[in-house]
Amino acid sequence: MPGKFTVEDLHSIVYRIFHKAGCRPTDADSIAQVLIAAELRGIPSHGIVRIKDYIGLYQKGRMNMQPEIRIVHETPSTATIDGDNGPGIVVAMEAMKTAISKAETAGSGWVAVRNSNHFGIAGFYSLMAAQKDMIGIASTNANALVAPTFSIDRMLGTNPIAFAIPGKEEKPFVADFATTPIARGKLEIMEKQGKTAPEGFIQDAEGNVSTDPSVLKRGGAILPLGGDYEHSSYKGYCMSAMVDILSAVIPGANFGPFVPPQVAYLEPKAESPGEGLGHFFGAMRLDAFRPADEIKSYLDLWIRTFRNAKAADEQTPVLIPGDPEYAKENELKENGISIIPQVWDELIKCADSLGLDLNQK
Amino acid sequence: MPGKFTVEDLHSIVYRIFHKAGCRPTDADSIAQVLIAAELRGIPSHGIVRIKDYIGLYQKGRMNMQPEIRIVHETPSTATIDGDNGPGIVVAMEAMKTAISKAETAGSGWVAVRNSNHFGIAGFYSLMAAQKDMIGIASTNANALVAPTFSIDRMLGTNPIAFAIPGKEEKPFVADFATTPIARGKLEIMEKQGKTAPEGFIQDAEGNVSTDPSVLKRGGAILPLGGDYEHSSYKGYCMSAMVDILSAVIPGANFGPFVPPQVAYLEPKAESPGEGLGHFFGAMRLDAFRPADEIKSYLDLWIRTFRNAKAADEQTPVLIPGDPEYAKENELKENGISIIPQVWDELIKCADSLGLDLNQK
Repeated sequence: MPGKFTVEDLHSIVYRIFHKAGCRPTDADSIAQVLIAAELRGIPSHGIVRIKDYIGLYQKGRMNMQPEIRIVHETPSTATIDGDNGPGIVVAMEAMKTAISKAETAGSGWVAVRNSNHFGIAGFYSLMAAQKDMIGIASTNANALVAPTFSIDRMLGTNPIAFAIPGKEEKPFVADFATTPIARGKLEIMEKQGKTAPEGFIQDAEGNVSTDPSVLKRGGAILPLGGDYEHSSYKGYCMSAMVDILSAVIPGANFGPFVPPQVAYLEPKAESPGEGLGHFFGAMRLDAFRPADEIKSYLDLWIRTFRNAKAADEQTPVLIPGDPEYAKENELKENGISIIPQVWDELIKCADSLGLDLNQK
Repeated sequence: MPGKFTVEDLHSIVYRIFHKAGCRPTDADSIAQVLIAAELRGIPSHGIVRIKDYIGLYQKGRMNMQPEIRIVHETPSTATIDGDNGPGIVVAMEAMKTAISKAETAGSGWVAVRNSNHFGIAGFYSLMAAQKDMIGIASTNANALVAPTFSIDRMLGTNPIAFAIPGKEEKPFVADFATTPIARGKLEIMEKQGKTAPEGFIQDAEGNVSTDPSVLKRGGAILPLGGDYEHSSYKGYCMSAMVDILSAVIPGANFGPFVPPQVAYLEPKAESPGEGLGHFFGAMRLDAFRPADEIKSYLDLWIRTFRNAKAADEQTPVLIPGDPEYAKENELKENGISIIPQVWDELIKCADSLGLDLNQK
């Protein structure tokens, strides 16, 4: 395997896989864009490693590579979209474009989506709006791993929210975060390294505090942001619930415990009150509130004020949401993107299963 | 002093105070409504105790009791409102009505507000939308008490968000929460009781973990939701920053450290890049996404599914956001609202200073 990839080479690889799997050229291109953006932004858990899952769902007949995405209901500033069980990235891209186009005429656009799948990183879609002088908001529900406060049942996903707004000279402020203190991927890494997890991340099947990162395999659950009741875990629960309601209850997707698994090795749920997985997107034109330039200059002042806040330790300056991702992006664009051997091997196998030889251009 | 008040008696007292202070009858009525709703919902820190602060600001010429609230910019689904430095509750009520009215025609309505003051409980405004078969969202920035991750400067307020959506048979889901693990009021109570605060709430002036509830008086700060970096406090920081940007950067209100103090005994800031304090409101018609009845029935299913999630301890069932507040409201409507002697004494003094005798009807 190659050591590192340029963005162009990696794009071409991802494009070929999804085109071979039946995606339309523009759709294969979208999928490559979003997965590589995740790598560049330092979120490899939502990058290349997901390809085997998307292709696996397609091969089991559980994902439609040529969806007919359609608006099923709309007003000047809102819409509900049926994703026709397409790849989440393809559906999300279309939905965010719809939100942006509604914002262009009505000031703001809000799009709820049902019948979709895993959409990669939420931040990508919020940035689509920021590039057009709009606030962008993107969220999705996800497989249930999180127990609400007081519960031992896994009822909610890590349900991320992304929020982006452009500055004038500063790069866009981009907050993109799961509504839990930790993601499943980080627990898996701790487990492989033989480490224990800090208190406040997970509980066991009986709801006791746990530091065993493998506890999810034995009926444990991730805690909401906050950790325990004393530290206001109900606020993390509230946030995650808000995302689930916007993404599923509004459009009619599956909510909480009914969200269909996004990996081929887990069987779909027997019970399914809604359609597929759900998302929610928003776009608000800055100049729908006051002249865009005034807001962008004021955001620059906000960013500089916060960046200059006094740090407890001078070596660890105060960060603006988005800063770490921009730094990572610059580094990887210059030095190339590393794909770990295990992920590359899986990718070769995945391409093989489609009859595609990645070594042949 | 009387032991307990009926809603009607308390309403009449609050109404008379604000009417005497120069508020228009409908505005005095609004203020009474929102402050009493806070008492009923079990959030007395945002109820009657605030009256002396509002009146104090008015008496120092820092709040305008007869504001000319006006829309300064708008599109079919958005508006920016200048609150003319009026009482926050009066301004917020007008802004939420504007959001609802925009939603009626455009599907959704989003209103950013500058030049306002403390608006009481966010939940009240989100419920105004829920009563009209809409999703309601309300948020505000507030005086800086919170240090962003890695910082020792107080840069953000407790910046609450409220989100409400109506069910069909179930009462509205209402999440209304500060984006910090604890409010200042709770720390004051711990201090008075001679208790220490659990770790994860506060830090001292150097950024060290503190359990001393009085540490805010010596340069300490409240931590964002999450607590420390390891427990993803940057996610709480992101949420609080989003609220500050929507409430201040968008409309041109003061942000973060520049938010004017909402008590008369603290002097206004010397530096003021924006106008007053800011809020942000949203309303989305349910039937802007699909038939309202379908969404409301599906929310009922969501609520019942979560309420029936298995509890770790049967004595402590899983709660739906809003449940504790409804229970409190039922209890207080039946048994009356208690006002603690210290707050009642302050109220008498406050009325006195306006030349109003509360004992005389």
